[in-house]
Amino acid sequence: MIIMERNATDEQIKRVIDEILRCGLRVDVSRGEFRTIIGLIGDEKGVSFDHLAGLPGVKEVQPVESKYKLVSREYHPDSRIIKVGDVVIGGGEPVFIAGPCAIEGREQMLKTAEEAKSAGANILRGGAFKPRSSVHSFQGLQEEGLKYLAEAGEKFNMPTITEVRGEGQVELVAQYVDILQIGARNMYNQDLLEAVAKMGKPVLLKRNFGAGIEEFLCFAEYIVAQGNKDIILCERGLVPIGKGKEYTRYMLDLSAVPVLKKETYLPVFADPSHGTGRRDLVEPMSRAAIAAGADGLMIETHCNPQEALCDSQQMIMADELKRIIDVCIKIRKIM
Amino acid sequence: MIIMERNATDEQIKRVIDEILRCGLRVDVSRGEFRTIIGLIGDEKGVSFDHLAGLPGVKEVQPVESKYKLVSREYHPDSRIIKVGDVVIGGGEPVFIAGPCAIEGREQMLKTAEEAKSAGANILRGGAFKPRSSVHSFQGLQEEGLKYLAEAGEKFNMPTITEVRGEGQVELVAQYVDILQIGARNMYNQDLLEAVAKMGKPVLLKRNFGAGIEEFLCFAEYIVAQGNKDIILCERGLVPIGKGKEYTRYMLDLSAVPVLKKETYLPVFADPSHGTGRRDLVEPMSRAAIAAGADGLMIETHCNPQEALCDSQQMIMADELKRIIDVCIKIRKIM
Amino acid sequence: MIIMERNATDEQIKRVIDEILRCGLRVDVSRGEFRTIIGLIGDEKGVSFDHLAGLPGVKEVQPVESKYKLVSREYHPDSRIIKVGDVVIGGGEPVFIAGPCAIEGREQMLKTAEEAKSAGANILRGGAFKPRSSVHSFQGLQEEGLKYLAEAGEKFNMPTITEVRGEGQVELVAQYVDILQIGARNMYNQDLLEAVAKMGKPVLLKRNFGAGIEEFLCFAEYIVAQGNKDIILCERGLVPIGKGKEYTRYMLDLSAVPVLKKETYLPVFADPSHGTGRRDLVEPMSRAAIAAGADGLMIETHCNPQEALCDSQQMIMADELKRIIDVCIKIRKIM
Amino acid sequence: MIIMERNATDEQIKRVIDEILRCGLRVDVSRGEFRTIIGLIGDEKGVSFDHLAGLPGVKEVQPVESKYKLVSREYHPDSRIIKVGDVVIGGGEPVFIAGPCAIEGREQMLKTAEEAKSAGANILRGGAFKPRSSVHSFQGLQEEGLKYLAEAGEKFNMPTITEVRGEGQVELVAQYVDILQIGARNMYNQDLLEAVAKMGKPVLLKRNFGAGIEEFLCFAEYIVAQGNKDIILCERGLVPIGKGKEYTRYMLDLSAVPVLKKETYLPVFADPSHGTGRRDLVEPMSRAAIAAGADGLMIETHCNPQEALCDSQQMIMADELKRIIDVCIKIRKIM
Repeated sequence: MIIMERNATDEQIKRVIDEILRCGLRVDVSRGEFRTIIGLIGDEKGVSFDHLAGLPGVKEVQPVESKYKLVSREYHPDSRIIKVGDVVIGGGEPVFIAGPCAIEGREQMLKTAEEAKSAGANILRGGAFKPRSSVHSFQGLQEEGLKYLAEAGEKFNMPTITEVRGEGQVELVAQYVDILQIGARNMYNQDLLEAVAKMGKPVLLKRNFGAGIEEFLCFAEYIVAQGNKDIILCERGLVPIGKGKEYTRYMLDLSAVPVLKKETYLPVFADPSHGTGRRDLVEPMSRAAIAAGADGLMIETHCNPQEALCDSQQMIMADELKRIIDVCIKIRKIM
Repeated sequence: MIIMERNATDEQIKRVIDEILRCGLRVDVSRGEFRTIIGLIGDEKGVSFDHLAGLPGVKEVQPVESKYKLVSREYHPDSRIIKVGDVVIGGGEPVFIAGPCAIEGREQMLKTAEEAKSAGANILRGGAFKPRSSVHSFQGLQEEGLKYLAEAGEKFNMPTITEVRGEGQVELVAQYVDILQIGARNMYNQDLLEAVAKMGKPVLLKRNFGAGIEEFLCFAEYIVAQGNKDIILCERGLVPIGKGKEYTRYMLDLSAVPVLKKETYLPVFADPSHGTGRRDLVEPMSRAAIAAGADGLMIETHCNPQEALCDSQQMIMADELKRIIDVCIKIRKIM
Repeated sequence: MIIMERNATDEQIKRVIDEILRCGLRVDVSRGEFRTIIGLIGDEKGVSFDHLAGLPGVKEVQPVESKYKLVSREYHPDSRIIKVGDVVIGGGEPVFIAGPCAIEGREQMLKTAEEAKSAGANILRGGAFKPRSSVHSFQGLQEEGLKYLAEAGEKFNMPTITEVRGEGQVELVAQYVDILQIGARNMYNQDLLEAVAKMGKPVLLKRNFGAGIEEFLCFAEYIVAQGNKDIILCERGLVPIGKGKEYTRYMLDLSAVPVLKKETYLPVFADPSHGTGRRDLVEPMSRAAIAAGADGLMIETHCNPQEALCDSQQMIMADELKRIIDVCIKIRKIM
Repeated sequence: MIIMERNATDEQIKRVIDEILRCGLRVDVSRGEFRTIIGLIGDEKGVSFDHLAGLPGVKEVQPVESKYKLVSREYHPDSRIIKVGDVVIGGGEPVFIAGPCAIEGREQMLKTAEEAKSAGANILRGGAFKPRSSVHSFQGLQEEGLKYLAEAGEKFNMPTITEVRGEGQVELVAQYVDILQIGARNMYNQDLLEAVAKMGKPVLLKRNFGAGIEEFLCFAEYIVAQGNKDIILCERGLVPIGKGKEYTRYMLDLSAVPVLKKETYLPVFADPSHGTGRRDLVEPMSRAAIAAGADGLMIETHCNPQEALCDSQQMIMADELKRIIDVCIKIRKIM
């Protein structure tokens, strides 16, 4: 839908119409008392709206169809269910991903896995290639860490997930883990998205902290465009706004959960650990995310959070994880 | 705590110390290898930190004590319980405020009240002085509306609440309703806050959509400073960030709920109607708010939302309200 | 323009059309392959878009006409020029408002005025009713301050401006000053806007720190609706976004300057003092604002900033003010 | 600086002190009436503040030293001057990068380069690997495009710059161009930053649209950590905040320019094309950026913007570029 300026000339209107026809579409022209509005009819895929918006006399271009047809529930109504090992994601039962922020050693990984398993977690996480804000911080054990994660997953019969931070690690990581994670900072990294999508394994895609819902889904589209529909969307918080003290690291946007469930057929998770950055907020925000309709949670746990090398403030212990899982299952049941 | 610049001179340091002593405080000076840090000891109330920060050689002033002692749980550990009629706010049971965005007439008010009551709502709301983004929109029935609200509240034995939009209406509104609401747009309006506080009735204070938690509590402080501690804090969404389509009117910041519960002794509500602006999101976000620990909800309901003159898109009907109240009570019980 | 859902029924479409016709408008219905789009023709003033958006089968309502016709340049192409005393605002020459954040005493006011005048400032500011984030901070000298401001303005032949913080002060303030200022926190305060507009004096309206351009102009509309077109719009910074240290108090949105100049016929100012909160940024951001096309600047100055009771960190002295005014006049000349 | 809770026990305080000593630092303990504050003395590089913040009894950790020592002007006062061919960046004269958003063909590249050169541009840009929000959009000519860019740069004696979108392209791109650009979406991509830094060529690093200044500089630190100090920082706009119509694509944060100039020794550019997304705003925001102190600008130009395949709405033609360059040079001179 193209809205012309009030004083657009007939010539300008004609030029816009010609350009649209040249792209193989048809037009529906509505000449009002004050303005002319031109609707596009047909397949808009090949049309450059940027180009049309730049033509003289055009006030604005308002898209009517969504920008993300491949992941849109309007076009594909059935919810996607993803099976990884024995775990069913998006099937009604909430799924819990747990494990340490960073894999720090074999013992830490095994112990944390054992505790997470007995607390009721379904999938095991652990960071081997850590994205860090400071070049001076611990950057992860890399392949050594992946081995510990795989060993722990196998030992406790838990599918595994880890973040792929850069293109150079895609194949390596895919050898060791069951689900590949794209972190919030890489949501816009289309080269990485395509490389990861091609591995044929489920992908957990985190929303960037500055991204609107529309952008989030447009980038999920990059994965589906490679033929991979096994995508878990994960809300993990937006950049804080407002002045003064930061009480939380990010601002978990839980309304994204029901919005995404409506807009797309993909399962939706939330990450209350990164989303808040505070241990004491993990439990209330876990409950809230499930109550908002999340299909699962990603929670950072550690056998000894106070000794952790990374994100120490937001990791919880197994007893708290168990309490969270128990209450979340109950909340889901009464919904 | 005052952090001096690396190259601050002895003279500059001395001047800062002198200024602090002049205010009747003591200092604790820590001279490090690279910097000098000056701590303040004593009652900081009379100190102008702005002024200190402007002195030469000062890098920054980092406050250690919170800016909102009057409403701070650190200073007053016991939760505040507010009783209005038969309703107990902050006492463990969730409380539900329901009613129309705007009072449109006697019949609409009575019918909506009756339905809200039978759905399980505790408190009746209705707008008589509407804050509107457009001067061309319906602005409310004013005193006529207040009469309908009071009549409906009495008839169905529900305490009432309405927004006081301007100072000119404070006394009038206080004659008709039980709880005075300060809307999000007026959170910073200290003259209005003080005038409302003086009425001696409970105040529901909504968080401004651009306000951090710290600012929110500093303005609650204005009410307590008038001797009125019966304040209900209400989270109702922040300005949307991110590009592209707006899926929700505002962004409900549910992590504010547990943060506020920790920082202050006041009861905390959430408003999923304004917080999302979408009827279909009221239910999931109501569940989420209660699961996050909210003491109650403010939900816009209408006997016939599609005929409403204001906020038609976000109001729900009584059957949905009932479903929400039922599930929220269940969620609270298992927490 | 009303966009129906893909699966909207004929009945739903008919209902929407009926509602529009009932409001006295005509419709232009475009039935596409996938969707029906209904355009409204006629005077939209009486139409409740909220209401239409809530009807079944409606996907969304996309307004085509702007929401602020009264202040819109599209409807009123000629720039507004405001004359106050000898000062011409919006006439091509940049105008400089200077003076202290808060009026602290007669001597301070007179001295600051004298210095501002000789530095080249045109209009004198000074706060008498201070909006403060903390109830414990200095709140202003009130009427006593207004007297000092008026005296200083008269002595140095400078029109005066001060903020009206609440409705209770409107008439009092209007007796003493030439231009009435609505602060950023009160931009949404429609009762105050209307009361101030009725005084018949020019109004400087600051943009709220969480307000989009559209909202800003919708609230300027409240003033024009009272018959007062002498409005100066003032950009003074948005809430900071992003994690970590706050380097500026707010984030001055200078692109608002050319956008506002295009959207409206009103003069546009910027406030680099509040917009940054840092003395050392006042000069570069003053230059930038003028270079972006601002019609004038509002700058906080003080005869002795380090002794100031309020905003000490952002006030500058007369010598710096002079340098700023000189360079800004030169920049304007070469543009 | 570690601030303990008011009720922290001696044991908790002792534990924090022990942990710090264990890291090889010394402590400076200040026991106030209400709180204990522990200062760290020595080299903080090896300390995990995350870990300390997670210890029991710790209220918060307030860093005193900046997180970005390698790029900090406090540690390295001299401004960095970068020479590329005949062009001197950061040397006082403003530098102008111009060229098309996307390289679309040989002829378009040569023509645009010729026009940019005669308009006064110093450096030639052109996108070969385009980051795009939609997988369905034009993604760039890749190596073919690089060849056209290199040819055009050589022909008109202009150093060249292009964005490196993914790690897979680093070496290829480095063969063809003189300056490697990291786009806003990749600012957090530490693997890409390190790979690009190692090429030994100057790097233009754009600020992410959700990043604070502190984060921006922490990621510039990744480049310096590889031994490459030839970094140009570029402000290109933050995510829009506020409700309603988006008048600009992003929100150019020009106060970042003087802040960055103060915090770091690196040259600072601004990109008014992406920062606004509107052709008519490029000129005012170019002037404003230079007036704010920017060392240069990156402006998208095209020989025929209306035919452009990408960002058609924000590209300008050579005549406008010339006007911008001329006025910017004049503004710089009078500053």
